[in-house]
Amino acid sequence: MDATFAALADPTRRAILARLASGEASVTELARPFDISLPAISRHLKVLEHAGLISRGRDAQWRPRTLRATPLKDAAGWLEEYRQFWEQSLDRLEEYLDDLQSKEPKQ
Amino acid sequence: MDATFAALADPTRRAILARLASGEASVTELARPFDISLPAISRHLKVLEHAGLISRGRDAQWRPRTLRATPLKDAAGWLEEYRQFWEQSLDRLEEYLDDLQSKEPKQ
Repeated sequence: MDATFAALADPTRRAILARLASGEASVTELARPFDISLPAISRHLKVLEHAGLISRGRDAQWRPRTLRATPLKDAAGWLEEYRQFWEQSLDRLEEYLDDLQSKEPKQ
Repeated sequence: MDATFAALADPTRRAILARLASGEASVTELARPFDISLPAISRHLKVLEHAGLISRGRDAQWRPRTLRATPLKDAAGWLEEYRQFWEQSLDRLEEYLDDLQSKEPKQ
């Protein structure tokens, strides 16, 4: 879980996962939309691979990367435990706004 | 989002949030279950505060920390986009197991 959340704490890595959501891709294809070097992309891919978020294809020439969603499922499961808290705070905001509205002078 | 995921990439910080889910707590109370120093706890609390995951009470003496769940909601929303992928992989596992079972010799 540490490795998953650490891997997600970077916008380039999240964008790589978003790209892989539309299908497997080679390192060159993954690097294309980003204005960063191939070695920098490779480092990001290593972090994602270490977290089990991507895997490498067997094709020796192409080695396409594929999204592996199981760690995302575990992370979502952890966050789900807190759903009641964010729902509560939205409820409280709504109550507050209702309250403000009821105090407005009638036209 | 970077700050949220980075804050969640540590088991002590996740445990602090779990403790705060059962109600606000002072720094001393938060430190108690962990075998680490108060300064170390304070550093973790700063990371959580920077990510907007906790806030400090106004009471000058006690300064209780409170869980703020909105960043967790945003993180869960990001992960939710990938639900189809982890559900697909479970479906594929199920198909594979069904397939294995159907190939077993009949008793």
